[in-house]
Amino acid sequence: MLAVPTPERISTSSSVRADTRCLVKATEPTRIAIVGLGKIAHDQHIPAIGRHPGFSLSAIVTRGAGLPGFDHFTQLDAMLAARPDVTAVALCVPPQVRFGMAWAALSAGRDVLLEKPPGATVAEVHALTDLARANGRTLFATWHSRFAPAVAPAKAWLGDRTVTRADIVWREDVRKWHPGQAWIWQAGGMGVFDPGINALSIVTEIMPRPLHITSAELEFPENRDTPIAARLAFADTTSAPVTADFDWRQTGPQTWDIRVETTEGALTLSAGGAKLEIDGRTVDQPAEAEYDGIYARFAELLATGMSDVDASPLVHVADAFMLGRRIVTDPFHD
Amino acid sequence: MLAVPTPERISTSSSVRADTRCLVKATEPTRIAIVGLGKIAHDQHIPAIGRHPGFSLSAIVTRGAGLPGFDHFTQLDAMLAARPDVTAVALCVPPQVRFGMAWAALSAGRDVLLEKPPGATVAEVHALTDLARANGRTLFATWHSRFAPAVAPAKAWLGDRTVTRADIVWREDVRKWHPGQAWIWQAGGMGVFDPGINALSIVTEIMPRPLHITSAELEFPENRDTPIAARLAFADTTSAPVTADFDWRQTGPQTWDIRVETTEGALTLSAGGAKLEIDGRTVDQPAEAEYDGIYARFAELLATGMSDVDASPLVHVADAFMLGRRIVTDPFHD
Repeated sequence: MLAVPTPERISTSSSVRADTRCLVKATEPTRIAIVGLGKIAHDQHIPAIGRHPGFSLSAIVTRGAGLPGFDHFTQLDAMLAARPDVTAVALCVPPQVRFGMAWAALSAGRDVLLEKPPGATVAEVHALTDLARANGRTLFATWHSRFAPAVAPAKAWLGDRTVTRADIVWREDVRKWHPGQAWIWQAGGMGVFDPGINALSIVTEIMPRPLHITSAELEFPENRDTPIAARLAFADTTSAPVTADFDWRQTGPQTWDIRVETTEGALTLSAGGAKLEIDGRTVDQPAEAEYDGIYARFAELLATGMSDVDASPLVHVADAFMLGRRIVTDPFHD
Repeated sequence: MLAVPTPERISTSSSVRADTRCLVKATEPTRIAIVGLGKIAHDQHIPAIGRHPGFSLSAIVTRGAGLPGFDHFTQLDAMLAARPDVTAVALCVPPQVRFGMAWAALSAGRDVLLEKPPGATVAEVHALTDLARANGRTLFATWHSRFAPAVAPAKAWLGDRTVTRADIVWREDVRKWHPGQAWIWQAGGMGVFDPGINALSIVTEIMPRPLHITSAELEFPENRDTPIAARLAFADTTSAPVTADFDWRQTGPQTWDIRVETTEGALTLSAGGAKLEIDGRTVDQPAEAEYDGIYARFAELLATGMSDVDASPLVHVADAFMLGRRIVTDPFHD
């Protein structure tokens, strides 16, 4: 548990928005629109919304084909104008176009859920946070890996233990997880930080003290604008070393592990936060249900009029790019 | 004027620190130490402290030779232990080593003034801000260009006018301003953003609405780890275009200009914020006195127990590195 909240984790007062709440009966589900009908919307958001009694999927915004049985718009502005009853939107578009849409939705008085990362830049996350506060709307910057089953137990176990070192290893096969996704290789697409930020979202959630990067090496394929691998060194504020090894070139078994050593034992989070070992003993966890957790949290934020925007994982990525030494490596071809 | 304060501009309560204040008589000047005796300390900090009746330069911390007549330490920790009467420190060391020193000074109950930029990473500025708040100390992240004489009048004139576009041109000769400074070319040294962040500190101060970067091109000399030139495109939250052109290869006359067009006239800040033209007419300003302004502000913060930490110029630099496309250019030799 952090003794001092980070400046990014802000909350908006529920009193500001009491007037608009009255338009909808308390027992009615929140009508929500999905914007961007890619893999993550299909695989996760639509099923999770379907399972949560507090939400009703009421519109789809996508330039391509919609979904049978759902009101379909090709432009967000058209949906915002036509469907005042849709009070929330979930933005599942790539980060490069997310800001304008989030700004439009918040400006039109809607509550907004953002897929990770919450923006293409840190500055735009701050601007959205300020707008949500000014307009009395809920803004929820989701980090789905924080809802992996073993993350909360890991955080609770770490408590205020003294960390002596931590090591993050996040190695996966980009061809398996991002086949043909051109935007991740374009400037602003973040490259290997697209999965790496999931690790950072867990580490920033569970570590007792804040971290900062002290050095970084980024490997750029000579034909790409974003890195395929990154090695980061952090310190926490007691100078305990923390390393991160992100690599997109791992074939065979995939690795998403975080090991934290403390003066009173060690833990290993593996499988992206699904499995937990403490001092070598497995601690049983429930099945993975990240997006059910996300929509449960969104419902809670809507009910209390709060926002939850922690930019710190994105801050670390920006810091890594600012501080990192660039190494040019072999070209990458899909 | 921003309607909503940025999350970084925080203040700490004066009540928390009342006990330590009693150790020094109210009329006595604040005993301050300078850490890092480079060009900026010699040229600016020492003369400005000498001119301000509220401060007394009481110690110098530098690995090299000290200054005749001033208590000299080679290590900050030794000074903090030996001189409890020195309640404030001004950190004029390069950003790569600033965090550890600021952390040590704040932890030892001292008030801290940071030269620009306030850290090598955004995350460490957040950590220091949280520590200052928790310890009830003053932390002042200075941006000297904000104290240039025409900046406050420019900000006042812009008020809440509607900006239609803005253009920053910051072109200077690195050989003239940074002769032989190896650290600016090393990863984390920021390269052309070392002067460019001065422009960003002015723009973030005077513009009525926050900005975010939408695209960037960074030119890296093939033998250096930091950029020699950068072209940035921003949008403000009304989508008005803002451009920045930073270049370290300009010989002859140097250019430090910001032009802002609004629906009700235009202004040009030139000479790094020293000169102001509104609709083509020169507005007379007092002589440059940036560091007198900085120490006047620090005295005010100390008297009221406040902090002033705006990370937004550094956030834009980190965002530029994260979002920017890298272009390799000719090698640079001093």
